[in-house]
Amino acid sequence: HIAQLTAQQFASGSLDGVKLVITAGPTIEAIDPVRFISNHSSGKMGFALAQAAIDAGASVTLVAGPVHLATPERCQRINVQSAEQMLQAVNEQLDSCDIFIGCAAVADYRPATVAEQKIKKNDDSMSITLVRNPDIISVVAKHQPRPFCVGFAAETENLIAHAQQKRIRKNLDMIIANDVANSAIGFNSDNNAATLITAQGEHSLALASKTQLARAAIAHIAQQFKAGNKPA
Amino acid sequence: HIAQLTAQQFASGSLDGVKLVITAGPTIEAIDPVRFISNHSSGKMGFALAQAAIDAGASVTLVAGPVHLATPERCQRINVQSAEQMLQAVNEQLDSCDIFIGCAAVADYRPATVAEQKIKKNDDSMSITLVRNPDIISVVAKHQPRPFCVGFAAETENLIAHAQQKRIRKNLDMIIANDVANSAIGFNSDNNAATLITAQGEHSLALASKTQLARAAIAHIAQQFKAGNKPA
Repeated sequence: HIAQLTAQQFASGSLDGVKLVITAGPTIEAIDPVRFISNHSSGKMGFALAQAAIDAGASVTLVAGPVHLATPERCQRINVQSAEQMLQAVNEQLDSCDIFIGCAAVADYRPATVAEQKIKKNDDSMSITLVRNPDIISVVAKHQPRPFCVGFAAETENLIAHAQQKRIRKNLDMIIANDVANSAIGFNSDNNAATLITAQGEHSLALASKTQLARAAIAHIAQQFKAGNKPA
Repeated sequence: HIAQLTAQQFASGSLDGVKLVITAGPTIEAIDPVRFISNHSSGKMGFALAQAAIDAGASVTLVAGPVHLATPERCQRINVQSAEQMLQAVNEQLDSCDIFIGCAAVADYRPATVAEQKIKKNDDSMSITLVRNPDIISVVAKHQPRPFCVGFAAETENLIAHAQQKRIRKNLDMIIANDVANSAIGFNSDNNAATLITAQGEHSLALASKTQLARAAIAHIAQQFKAGNKPA
């Protein structure tokens, strides 16, 4: 409770009246009723961003994959499993969305077919054919009205270059770059470091708790959102 | 604490001086540093069995895949990720193991190769080649000295027939059959129902909390273990 009061003192009111939609956590893509493909994402960063945005006065909808985290107070939460379900939930929020933050680790691929019964293990090897999932943030960046779009880039090599390419390719206003090869940060860690990249430049945030990093990121996002710069 | 005292009253001492090794939870099999294949298993049933065995006087080692559960008191816990890691941890316990309960939802297959860097999504579709994982309970059932071996069968169709076939094929003393097509039980549910199958017959346990079911299952396992019946 003391932590919450402190958080409220940090709240700047910089996002008063602003509606944010934030995706968080992994998606899971069914192979059969038992097996699935997923990825390492605790959802902690997305949930911390939601809390920081609420503290800054925003109205926040959190579209969350399967995670073990409590919903921040005064936050609307929509639970989903797959990338296709996440896209549908996001789409239903876009007509009244000012800022979109795609923090979920959406599975790039899903199995081409989902077996209705558990697949029996008869063979020494087997092959799964995967097809591309919808690219949620690219869909959001093409939507009219278009929100201020913030993406994430989790990379294991050439962090800034890969992230800047991704920002331009997807027509995002900002991309938040994480070096996931550094085991001190990211994924299940409580700490994170990041570089916030826009068309206007880079803004580095040093290693900090995800709570502190989220507050700093939200402050920078609010500033850029209000500046009204274009992504190109 | 009151719940614990009650549990101690239920403890029968039927497993005093007996060493159990129990596997629990899913395994996760890496595709690359970010993506993995896994399966739906909360670990709740395995952890409940560990608690029930401890309450019955046993010395318990719990070999657990990635789950979000607290370790039962007076329980040795070994955390693992993949099936190969789980097998290694189990192997290190076998020379002093009286009863082995394979409750983990071990991934049957793992990717044939694990990419060192995150795989870039360049193609509309891709294929993953999977190879068979070691069959942990079959390895245990061939080990000398051989513990009393209890396996699980999670099936979506022909429950009892598939489970009995599995028990005989793997040379197990007992198999605990769950109907995972029934959404009221299994996986992430707090409730479960099961049929305990030995060479001597079937023993049905009605729908109950996993805690209650675990106590009933441990009582039946203790009885069969002491009867010294052979699996064939």
